[in-house]
Amino acid sequence: MLSEPKMAQKAAETLGRVRERKPLVHNITNYVVMNYTANALLACGASPVMAHAIEEVEEMVSLAGALVLNIGTLTPGWIEAMLKAGKKANALHIPVILDPVGAGATRLRTDSARRLIEGLSIQVIRGNPSEILSLGRGIKGSRPKGVDSVHTVDEAAEAAAALARDLGTTLAITGAVDLITNGEKVCRVRNGHEMMSSVTGTGCTATAIIGAFLAVEPSPLDAAATGLSYFGLAGEKAAARATGPGSFQTALLDALYEMETEELRIGAKIQI
Amino acid sequence: MLSEPKMAQKAAETLGRVRERKPLVHNITNYVVMNYTANALLACGASPVMAHAIEEVEEMVSLAGALVLNIGTLTPGWIEAMLKAGKKANALHIPVILDPVGAGATRLRTDSARRLIEGLSIQVIRGNPSEILSLGRGIKGSRPKGVDSVHTVDEAAEAAAALARDLGTTLAITGAVDLITNGEKVCRVRNGHEMMSSVTGTGCTATAIIGAFLAVEPSPLDAAATGLSYFGLAGEKAAARATGPGSFQTALLDALYEMETEELRIGAKIQI
Amino acid sequence: MLSEPKMAQKAAETLGRVRERKPLVHNITNYVVMNYTANALLACGASPVMAHAIEEVEEMVSLAGALVLNIGTLTPGWIEAMLKAGKKANALHIPVILDPVGAGATRLRTDSARRLIEGLSIQVIRGNPSEILSLGRGIKGSRPKGVDSVHTVDEAAEAAAALARDLGTTLAITGAVDLITNGEKVCRVRNGHEMMSSVTGTGCTATAIIGAFLAVEPSPLDAAATGLSYFGLAGEKAAARATGPGSFQTALLDALYEMETEELRIGAKIQI
Repeated sequence: MLSEPKMAQKAAETLGRVRERKPLVHNITNYVVMNYTANALLACGASPVMAHAIEEVEEMVSLAGALVLNIGTLTPGWIEAMLKAGKKANALHIPVILDPVGAGATRLRTDSARRLIEGLSIQVIRGNPSEILSLGRGIKGSRPKGVDSVHTVDEAAEAAAALARDLGTTLAITGAVDLITNGEKVCRVRNGHEMMSSVTGTGCTATAIIGAFLAVEPSPLDAAATGLSYFGLAGEKAAARATGPGSFQTALLDALYEMETEELRIGAKIQI
Repeated sequence: MLSEPKMAQKAAETLGRVRERKPLVHNITNYVVMNYTANALLACGASPVMAHAIEEVEEMVSLAGALVLNIGTLTPGWIEAMLKAGKKANALHIPVILDPVGAGATRLRTDSARRLIEGLSIQVIRGNPSEILSLGRGIKGSRPKGVDSVHTVDEAAEAAAALARDLGTTLAITGAVDLITNGEKVCRVRNGHEMMSSVTGTGCTATAIIGAFLAVEPSPLDAAATGLSYFGLAGEKAAARATGPGSFQTALLDALYEMETEELRIGAKIQI
Repeated sequence: MLSEPKMAQKAAETLGRVRERKPLVHNITNYVVMNYTANALLACGASPVMAHAIEEVEEMVSLAGALVLNIGTLTPGWIEAMLKAGKKANALHIPVILDPVGAGATRLRTDSARRLIEGLSIQVIRGNPSEILSLGRGIKGSRPKGVDSVHTVDEAAEAAAALARDLGTTLAITGAVDLITNGEKVCRVRNGHEMMSSVTGTGCTATAIIGAFLAVEPSPLDAAATGLSYFGLAGEKAAARATGPGSFQTALLDALYEMETEELRIGAKIQI
């Protein structure tokens, strides 16, 4: 079975709701991907806004359906704005998603990601395996396994579920197969194409799209799994048309825009 | 009649002058659109420069033919740089255009736009209807009508003309039909394509192109109307080639670059 | 002879090594080109990272194979981060390349470029002729010739070689023909296409690609000449497919990605 039929159905419905409601997605994100993620959110049917001034983030997030935090080109002042926006979002029950870009690579990034996780209620954290694993180290009571200690796919899923419970959030770990877990359930998404890793900011764009799905879907696990399935399927379509990363980047926006909900229902590969 | 022949002729001539003189256009603009507007200005024949450091904006604007101010991802420090650059531009009689992105959405944006309008002589303000209308609220002696109180196209034109007189500038309000007014005359531009609203920063790009036209055309009304006609016609051409927003964004740069002046003279839809 | 066979061979080998080793290239660069240069580095086979926070640049550059400094949208705080990153790179013998965007246009840019040159050991400086010449003015003991005083190609080469000796670095001066000199040897690269100047940030992208080549090739002269040859040849291929600057920008990334090392060996036009 390619997909849990219920999840494929949910993917189609959630994409349909994004297009119908056009939720405002407030991004405090990095310079590299601002343009591309704004275009991806528009292509998906959402309304993007980028705003990082500490003077306005509370007001802006109050208008939004979801808040996307991304530390890709962070400086300390941006973290303050993220905390302020995130606290307001929490107070208003607006979902928050974090992309801990580069966590584990420098202390500033690891510490900043942890400050955000400790200071806020975050519904989804999306990252690659090393970013996500770095979040577990040093957290009191956490039992993270290092990359080297994870030998099988099942062990990886177990370690991720344990970390999700420790952090009290849903983790979306993207790679050849995406693994999404809230500590209880584990989803795997098998959509996507290797060309996606030859373009900058595809991870960040996946995060923004999950943000749009979170704005219309109350279950963080379902929003993350269905959002990644939609994004991955668009990547498959785009790769079929592209001759390299330049034409792929262009084709990916077109594919996000063109995707029919029925096409997603048929093409989704989500397993629980 | 598709276009006032005199205006169509002027559009062609102004585009020709941009290409001949290659004016330097100094942008203090938002992170999201910096790359795309720089490319659009190059495609149109102008020379873009992005510079926002308060230490250099006076020197940079002194070399320029026009100054573009855009508050899309503003923080307070950027407004100081915009004021400094704008005052220097005013002293040297270099035209200034403002894009009040998000004015009306947060207090920081509305107040910043007003500070710029009050502190500077601005030749053109380009925005969507809600951004432009927000500039009128609370200005002493202004009589803005709310969006809800404007029931006909003629009432909208009247309200815009009144606001242009109050602000002492030319307003370029873009939408399905663009409305440009200096308080006395009213122009309508009917070029453009709905695909333009599915790409981020098309409004900001329109503003930058009007900036290039202002550098070579002394009438703000004519520069705004002809610049929007050129940009809209390029959008029509691009839409005919595009299958989605990714390919549209690419095709729009190509269309700006390829547009012959004679093609613009024939395709312009500008009415007074 | 189109190319010195030894240099053509070296170009192919160096590109091959970039793809094999996938060096991390740390960029402290301008907002306009962050996305495009990240994609160009990926297309070329390298791993880009953009990080400018003074709190993390030392840690980040320690992980890198090369450091790219670009002052295109600088503010004073960024220069401090560049100095800190550069000193760490120097201590670890990680090569540094500088792109002095706009040096000569404003005092902030000229002075900042000089501060970097005086405070750091820089292996390559890439710029256009006016940027590079501006670096020589006022340096004690330097004998720069102004643009107006250079009447022949040989005089330009002589002036550049003298400046390279004064600055103690390798200069890569790009234009219709690229001129690379370390003060002793002079290389000329005849790859490239005029369409490259109608897209923003091609110079910055050339700099980043030389950065990737520097990460795997110890001779700065060879890294700069072979990197520019690769970039220029990709530009020739892209121009053959493009109808304007939008499609060119896309095709250039594809061409960087697709280029076979053998194709580069045959197409390189490098002369010593």
